[in-house]
Amino acid sequence: MSTGSDLWGKAKRLIPGGSMLLSKRSEMYLPQGWPAYFDRTEGCAVWDLDGNKYLDLGFMGVGTNILGYSHPKVDEAVRRVIDKGNLSTLNAPEEVFLAEALIELHPWAGMARFARSGGEACAIAVRIGRAASGKDKVAFCGYHGWHDWYLAANLGDDDSLDGHLIPGLEPNGVPRALQGTSMPFQYNDLEGLRTLLENEPDIGVIYMEPQRSTPPEPGFLEGVRELATKHNAVLIFDECTSGFRRTLGGLHMHYGIEPDIATFGKTLGNGYAITAVIGRESVMQTAQSTFISSTFWTERIGPSAALAALNVMREEDAPQRVHEIGSQVQRRWRQTATDNGMSIETGGLPALANFTKIDRDPMLVKTFITARMLDKGYLAGVNLYASTAHTADILDDYHDAMNSVFEELRQSSDDEIERQLPQGLAQSGFRRIT
Amino acid sequence: MSTGSDLWGKAKRLIPGGSMLLSKRSEMYLPQGWPAYFDRTEGCAVWDLDGNKYLDLGFMGVGTNILGYSHPKVDEAVRRVIDKGNLSTLNAPEEVFLAEALIELHPWAGMARFARSGGEACAIAVRIGRAASGKDKVAFCGYHGWHDWYLAANLGDDDSLDGHLIPGLEPNGVPRALQGTSMPFQYNDLEGLRTLLENEPDIGVIYMEPQRSTPPEPGFLEGVRELATKHNAVLIFDECTSGFRRTLGGLHMHYGIEPDIATFGKTLGNGYAITAVIGRESVMQTAQSTFISSTFWTERIGPSAALAALNVMREEDAPQRVHEIGSQVQRRWRQTATDNGMSIETGGLPALANFTKIDRDPMLVKTFITARMLDKGYLAGVNLYASTAHTADILDDYHDAMNSVFEELRQSSDDEIERQLPQGLAQSGFRRIT
Repeated sequence: MSTGSDLWGKAKRLIPGGSMLLSKRSEMYLPQGWPAYFDRTEGCAVWDLDGNKYLDLGFMGVGTNILGYSHPKVDEAVRRVIDKGNLSTLNAPEEVFLAEALIELHPWAGMARFARSGGEACAIAVRIGRAASGKDKVAFCGYHGWHDWYLAANLGDDDSLDGHLIPGLEPNGVPRALQGTSMPFQYNDLEGLRTLLENEPDIGVIYMEPQRSTPPEPGFLEGVRELATKHNAVLIFDECTSGFRRTLGGLHMHYGIEPDIATFGKTLGNGYAITAVIGRESVMQTAQSTFISSTFWTERIGPSAALAALNVMREEDAPQRVHEIGSQVQRRWRQTATDNGMSIETGGLPALANFTKIDRDPMLVKTFITARMLDKGYLAGVNLYASTAHTADILDDYHDAMNSVFEELRQSSDDEIERQLPQGLAQSGFRRIT
Repeated sequence: MSTGSDLWGKAKRLIPGGSMLLSKRSEMYLPQGWPAYFDRTEGCAVWDLDGNKYLDLGFMGVGTNILGYSHPKVDEAVRRVIDKGNLSTLNAPEEVFLAEALIELHPWAGMARFARSGGEACAIAVRIGRAASGKDKVAFCGYHGWHDWYLAANLGDDDSLDGHLIPGLEPNGVPRALQGTSMPFQYNDLEGLRTLLENEPDIGVIYMEPQRSTPPEPGFLEGVRELATKHNAVLIFDECTSGFRRTLGGLHMHYGIEPDIATFGKTLGNGYAITAVIGRESVMQTAQSTFISSTFWTERIGPSAALAALNVMREEDAPQRVHEIGSQVQRRWRQTATDNGMSIETGGLPALANFTKIDRDPMLVKTFITARMLDKGYLAGVNLYASTAHTADILDDYHDAMNSVFEELRQSSDDEIERQLPQGLAQSGFRRIT
């Protein structure tokens, strides 16, 4: 048993779920075999607690590190913060500079607030949206974190999040009084949203990612924008995941549709905790009529890392590069499958690429690929969150490795594969971990 | 106009409220004159953007830095994190070690979760408390952050938070459906809490600080514990502010009363963002039946800084020392007042000492002291959050400076003082900043 696997066993006894993030539970990847913990990182390399080196061609910090791990320029900015001091009774000037930088990238926005987790940023955005519209109900699509306002959608109607969230997400402990305050709509279903808004005049917030797995149909985002304005609803784009993966800024800038508020996280600090809420000045001023305040939102590492990361993203044209890397990866996955007589479907934003095996048991295939790629020195499965550390050579080697795994898949029945996975299959979604 | 004051003007145009924390708004200290931003820190010294040095005998990061600013051992732990990598697809082992350390300090607790802001930790604790009790209503006293569950208490009944929060805290944007879900009780009013619990069988959570400004009356905390058990309510102690300021752990350990959950923040990482929720195993396991998950809760700086800070707190006996420093400061404030023919009242936990002038306009006195002490090179007012960087020499000089300000006060009428504050008085509480 590896040191990491052993520590993971201890973690599950001391921390409900073992990790603070569902997507970092070992069982989501490879029961027993997953290294679980890291000692150090560099580029796209991760060393586990036993000194084993892996190349991360999977989730890259679950979407945080589009510039690769331990980027020297971002780290240097953080070292300067430590040398000078991270927090005091006075404020960190970098938060003002970061507000300026984000507003410059998004000319429709006039003001910014910062937090340190994505769920928090979304909760701030919803608070401001409700305060600005004077209406309490939220129409949403996509995933927006763990907070009460969002999980309320799962209260009382088990089906309400179907198609939006992985089913099974449990809202225990969310007050039942919130039932009916958050209502889902389907991405690309403009008529569905129109009907919802007409039936529910108390909807004051429309919360969505500008794009999920599939691109917007022509006129969809434009239609959402028109409906929001018509119904006096604050349109919030959650760019925590999509931001900086196509253009230097929110994905909405690529589509030319301006929300009233946008939230950012994940890539913003390239692996340091910082999230942002930006918005039109008139909407954001509402934040002054409601209490939103937290001590650690004033620490200095977050905005300093973000300023450095924004500079590097610009210098290295990172958003466009990860888009191209991801597009190429999707093409090569399809080619590898075809070469091995299999058919797969690729999806996701190119920079957040995934594939699904459509002619085999998906969890079996996912677990097998994860196990075999781990043997070959990769943290990899059926997703690749592209980073600028994924160089052409690294990608060539990765695709060669994937090809040999596909060859094994082609030559083995599901039963044969399952026998090679004695610890069982990866868990999916929000299933309870025991 | 100073560089910081100038930047603060820009901040208010770009960031609603200017700062992410109410208690770091310049107007709370000294309109126009407050330096607002820091360049660097060391011990209890803070340098502003113009290179002016101040000694912080005020809020020490608004309660975060009981070991002083830029503590070399804590900073060294954070530098190691940056050298090795802050975040990856795998987990940071330090979070498991921190869970172990906090549980060792609090033997009644069996499991821990971490977040990066205090409000978040409180929201997690309430979610778990509601899920574990199966009841939605919360009885609370004291301050617990900006989240909907808490501000709901201010909905519909403007008086409901009187005596608990600074009046004026506005809950705009908190869904009206939450009205009546959070109900205040008064500290040390056991009968009030008993009546509340008897009238409201749906109360499943009792949320309070183990001590606010005044110590618990004999039997009060014991009585709360009994009532919680009797009414199947989860007792949560918010130790975000009180923790580690009397004993190495929560203040409840000093009083020998065990809650079901406790939350920590502020001092835990000595100026780096980390907050914790610890609880009985049976209660914390409930967290697995509800979705609580965030990417940046897995970053490594937070738990690494906390582990280092815990070690230093133990080595330096910091909780006891800040308690003694604060007790001494309270005595010397009273002596200084007496020497100048004035009477003041001191309050707060000794390590979070404050005084109120009871025979003069309090905001006038506070603003005047802040202005004069700033001239003398101090960030100081009517509070002193003690840290181990507050050495005997520094405190002696501070009390000499305070004495001369008290002399000026004695010799000047309120009108004369007001004329010396042309920019007006400090703002208090949650007043809207425009």
